[in-house]
Amino acid sequence: MTLQDSLRTNAQDVEHMLDRLLVAGDGPEARVVEAMRYGTLNGGKRIRPFLVVHGAALFNATPTGALRTAAAIEMVHSYSLIHDDLPAMDDDDLRRGRPTTHIRYDEATAILAGDALQALAFEVLARPETHSDPGVRAELVVALAAASGAEGMVGGQMIDLWAEEHDLDIATITRLQRMKTGALIRFSCEAGALLGKAPEAARQSLTAYAHDLGLAFQIADDLLDETGDEAAMGKRAHKDADKGKATFVSLLGVERAREQASLLADQAAAHLDSFGDKAAPLRDLARYVVERRS
Amino acid sequence: MTLQDSLRTNAQDVEHMLDRLLVAGDGPEARVVEAMRYGTLNGGKRIRPFLVVHGAALFNATPTGALRTAAAIEMVHSYSLIHDDLPAMDDDDLRRGRPTTHIRYDEATAILAGDALQALAFEVLARPETHSDPGVRAELVVALAAASGAEGMVGGQMIDLWAEEHDLDIATITRLQRMKTGALIRFSCEAGALLGKAPEAARQSLTAYAHDLGLAFQIADDLLDETGDEAAMGKRAHKDADKGKATFVSLLGVERAREQASLLADQAAAHLDSFGDKAAPLRDLARYVVERRS
Repeated sequence: MTLQDSLRTNAQDVEHMLDRLLVAGDGPEARVVEAMRYGTLNGGKRIRPFLVVHGAALFNATPTGALRTAAAIEMVHSYSLIHDDLPAMDDDDLRRGRPTTHIRYDEATAILAGDALQALAFEVLARPETHSDPGVRAELVVALAAASGAEGMVGGQMIDLWAEEHDLDIATITRLQRMKTGALIRFSCEAGALLGKAPEAARQSLTAYAHDLGLAFQIADDLLDETGDEAAMGKRAHKDADKGKATFVSLLGVERAREQASLLADQAAAHLDSFGDKAAPLRDLARYVVERRS
Repeated sequence: MTLQDSLRTNAQDVEHMLDRLLVAGDGPEARVVEAMRYGTLNGGKRIRPFLVVHGAALFNATPTGALRTAAAIEMVHSYSLIHDDLPAMDDDDLRRGRPTTHIRYDEATAILAGDALQALAFEVLARPETHSDPGVRAELVVALAAASGAEGMVGGQMIDLWAEEHDLDIATITRLQRMKTGALIRFSCEAGALLGKAPEAARQSLTAYAHDLGLAFQIADDLLDETGDEAAMGKRAHKDADKGKATFVSLLGVERAREQASLLADQAAAHLDSFGDKAAPLRDLARYVVERRS
């Protein structure tokens, strides 16, 4: 199976799981569940779920547990996009070629949909269907909370907003991205290791992979924002440049940023040597994230 | 110790725990932690923590576990107030006599502070310090998520927003309040039972108490909004009437609403008969919530 096929199959599996977990009732509160579905079931590439599922497969964790965990991570990722798109934050009206959630519904509903997605993510992780060992479920909750809270994703978004009025150097921008997008990517890999009760050394290799992959992913994102095709991306390009925000590309230049991303992807793949052929999908993914066009 | 003393001591204990759990670093992301502290450490009455601590005491659960759980519930309660106060939601600029979080900071920071408080609440529950049995920690996470998500608190707020443009009957308003405020009050009692691994019958008595208490609490809140003193409450009064929203008071009238609240408080207390004197603080609280002036 090619990586493209494998990404597509995985995206379908996680979409199906999300569809099962996001069920609207029939009271007036159903509106918030509809908005949760709208903001989540939107045909994303599902790279984080791919990391969970193929990471978990290295340690023979159950597919259902991996898919539930992948769905929980997509819920957190989606809630962060819904909130980041709000007028008070990045003020975006288009995402993946569709109106953003607060445009399609309204701001209040978008805020609430994000809030409820976060709650549901933790509920899904903590339920017995995710893993037979409650200790593993509690560890998953702690790790997702740490990755997505003030010392992870939310803290990164706070620095990103601060950056609109301050000049960033390469060290601060690296830290920003390790928190804003890197932490959840790292948790996606860590989750596979937790689900499979991986030995410490294997877990560290996977975390090292995630670390380099996350940064490569972000530099590639900055390159797309600078040079990419709006139609293919389904969102506005040049957003950062328009706001005068520093990015890896504005600091390093297009050429050096491209080299840096490629180097990080190779480095990420090399961390997986000890897993042999079983880790081929994760190695292929590292190449894919720096070569994608959208 | 009188109930007032007991509420004060408990509020100090939970404030101290929140202070320990909410620690700002020194990067630019510290702003979000400062906003989390601002929105949480604000001298509330801490009624939910009182329910956790005195519920847990019925079953000899450890005080540290109860206080951590109480702090987690206050984080969720506080995040919901921060988000509900936003311009896109209830648009309030005053709470407990101080500017609301988005006025003191800004809207983006308030949204992020709420998001990070929710994550931290689940992290606190799932960490080993809260209970030695990971099964209990996972159950706490599931129950808090269910109480605060689309089928609980967030769903209730969705109905509340919908109610600005629709007429509510007494059945819908009861359902709204059971979700918006009742679910977290119910979880506060349930958490004590979970922490103490209470037998099923005891747990059901406590849930029945919480059920009636939650509704009594809400009717009392509506009465305060209608007849209360803004200075004592530290927030705007008559908010619901100004928006033309139905409340228990607008549907039942002041006299019948007062009777109903009092009846529910008595009924709540009666559910605790089997616990004898040990449940005196919880019984006193039921009386207090319908007689308070702020």
